Amino acid sequence: MDQRIHEHAEVLVDWSARIEEGDDVVVRVDEGAHDLAVAVAEKLGERGANMLATYISDEVESAFIRGHDADFEADPDFETAMLERADSVFSLRAKRNTVEKGAVPEGRRAAYKRSRTEIKHLRMDTDWVSTIHPTRARAQNAGMGYEAYKDFVYDAILRDWEVLADQMANMKDLLEAGSEVRIVKEDTDLTMSIENRTAVNSAASVAYDSHNLPSGEVFTAPYDTEGEVYFDVPMTHDGARIRDVRLEFEDGEVVDWSAGTGEAALEDLLTTDEGARRLGELGIGMNRGIDRFTDNILFDEKMGDTIHLAVGRAYGSCLPEGETGNQSAVHADMITDVSEDSRLEVDGEVVQRNGTFWWEDGFEE
Amino acid sequence: MDQRIHEHAEVLVDWSARIEEGDDVVVRVDEGAHDLAVAVAEKLGERGANMLATYISDEVESAFIRGHDADFEADPDFETAMLERADSVFSLRAKRNTVEKGAVPEGRRAAYKRSRTEIKHLRMDTDWVSTIHPTRARAQNAGMGYEAYKDFVYDAILRDWEVLADQMANMKDLLEAGSEVRIVKEDTDLTMSIENRTAVNSAASVAYDSHNLPSGEVFTAPYDTEGEVYFDVPMTHDGARIRDVRLEFEDGEVVDWSAGTGEAALEDLLTTDEGARRLGELGIGMNRGIDRFTDNILFDEKMGDTIHLAVGRAYGSCLPEGETGNQSAVHADMITDVSEDSRLEVDGEVVQRNGTFWWEDGFEE
Repeated sequence: MDQRIHEHAEVLVDWSARIEEGDDVVVRVDEGAHDLAVAVAEKLGERGANMLATYISDEVESAFIRGHDADFEADPDFETAMLERADSVFSLRAKRNTVEKGAVPEGRRAAYKRSRTEIKHLRMDTDWVSTIHPTRARAQNAGMGYEAYKDFVYDAILRDWEVLADQMANMKDLLEAGSEVRIVKEDTDLTMSIENRTAVNSAASVAYDSHNLPSGEVFTAPYDTEGEVYFDVPMTHDGARIRDVRLEFEDGEVVDWSAGTGEAALEDLLTTDEGARRLGELGIGMNRGIDRFTDNILFDEKMGDTIHLAVGRAYGSCLPEGETGNQSAVHADMITDVSEDSRLEVDGEVVQRNGTFWWEDGFEE
Repeated sequence: MDQRIHEHAEVLVDWSARIEEGDDVVVRVDEGAHDLAVAVAEKLGERGANMLATYISDEVESAFIRGHDADFEADPDFETAMLERADSVFSLRAKRNTVEKGAVPEGRRAAYKRSRTEIKHLRMDTDWVSTIHPTRARAQNAGMGYEAYKDFVYDAILRDWEVLADQMANMKDLLEAGSEVRIVKEDTDLTMSIENRTAVNSAASVAYDSHNLPSGEVFTAPYDTEGEVYFDVPMTHDGARIRDVRLEFEDGEVVDWSAGTGEAALEDLLTTDEGARRLGELGIGMNRGIDRFTDNILFDEKMGDTIHLAVGRAYGSCLPEGETGNQSAVHADMITDVSEDSRLEVDGEVVQRNGTFWWEDGFEE
């Protein structure tokens, strides 16, 4: 087995999930995740944890939904009883066909998902971690050969997470101390308020309230956005390819928009509801192991030297007690490259210029 | 997908497990069982049942045991809680390497198994069914090409089970009414008492207290065995190939034995304990979809026109209330072909001659 799979398992068990002796760990094994499941099992054994492997397959789930023509029973108790007692849930995601879910009508899939609301909440109440094992289908989506894609995935996952978490702590402190963020680059001059908002150091560990491996971003929930912004990194939203998005904000709301490709999809997105035209997230991508767009948002939004803004729903973890933040049925991330000819300011102070942060060598104020 | 996989799923769900709307079904998916899991999911959906798929992999289990160097925690409660609430547990067995379990020391594997005693009991308390999905590894074990092996497996599974169950009911009635069984063929003249013993009609359905698919045997727990018997169907016990076994019984106990191949393994088996030299089971193989030895006891012992005798432990389902029957640490099936030059008698009446039962055309008394 590729030695990196063992290293991945170790990061997952020790850094991300902080597994200890006697922990009850549900390991959700996707169709293509067998090898990672083997490596994780060995590591869980070494830690003296207990393991229960479940099988998550889009094909199996689609077949179940396709066969079922009545109301789905809500949250069957043999599954809730298991999750209520679990300390941690790992999702080892490894799709063998990234569009398999399209095999059943969206309405039925949504109904099935709704019937499992409590199951989802119970899973999120554990020290859960979601990660990805590289498959050929994912490589294909990324437009890459399988070997090169594996290199890409492990570069993203096998970071020195302690060092990265410290660097991200700098950014978190800056954003929490600051009141206003400004982003300046080609066709972009955007300001937004972040006063009284919490910034999350998403360091791929439950110890940081961060549940995806890889991660590597600091994010918060901005408001009162003004100005224009250009997103030069491609995106896929609900299966639609959208490129070269330009947004213009006034009084916190998108008042004008365009896209080089997929403008109709962009229009659908922005007109979903009122909240879909306000920002829900500002994220600073700091994982330099991720150096290219691969059409997988788990990776894309963490890309080093990018900034992403999401229209739609804000995350509760960024909001002060009692505030709801921006509400919407959608949360759609859009990414802009800030590695060149760009700057990020907090309260008028430049904190990143041309892809270099103030605490790094070569930073020019 | 091979249409037979859908038919297999239907037999499993409807005939074997008798699944009804609202049933909570744990589906244990082996490494090679993906396609059967998809077909089973669709069928469970159609019946309005709930499904929770778990992943059973010898590689994953071996890795866990290999990593673990302390005492295993007994029956972790997130797993017992799930099983306590399950109505049915399916095991979709599909090994990709039939000797993978050898990858960890037997002592550690046995300790792990012991730590899961309650989990096993809880599974057996449900309407459980164990079945097999054909894999290349199983074909290899059987000495067959993959396509031919699939034909073999589906011939065994896709029977008209209602008809077969009726025929087996004849045999069950005969054995329960009778006092003594006699088997006569080449180098074989064996008698045994079956008085006051129950015969189980193993018709591959929980409705018959039969939990393996395929099945197709009627079995009981004989005693007071006398005479000699020759087993011409090969067997594998604990990994050892044993061939051409001859046993001689006096007062219910084996007093002399030999084997053409594997005599040392046979000796080990028979000297395990006192019960290992007494019979625990007499089984009449009645599944004519199974017409050859494939080194898989789940199939071999059900082979049409064979009789198997097991030395060792008797099954409780064959015994009257309060009787323990033969006790032993082992239960080893040995098979003899009765399709030619042979007869089976109950209380002196011939009930099967040269592979034809008394209720079938061509039977000669």
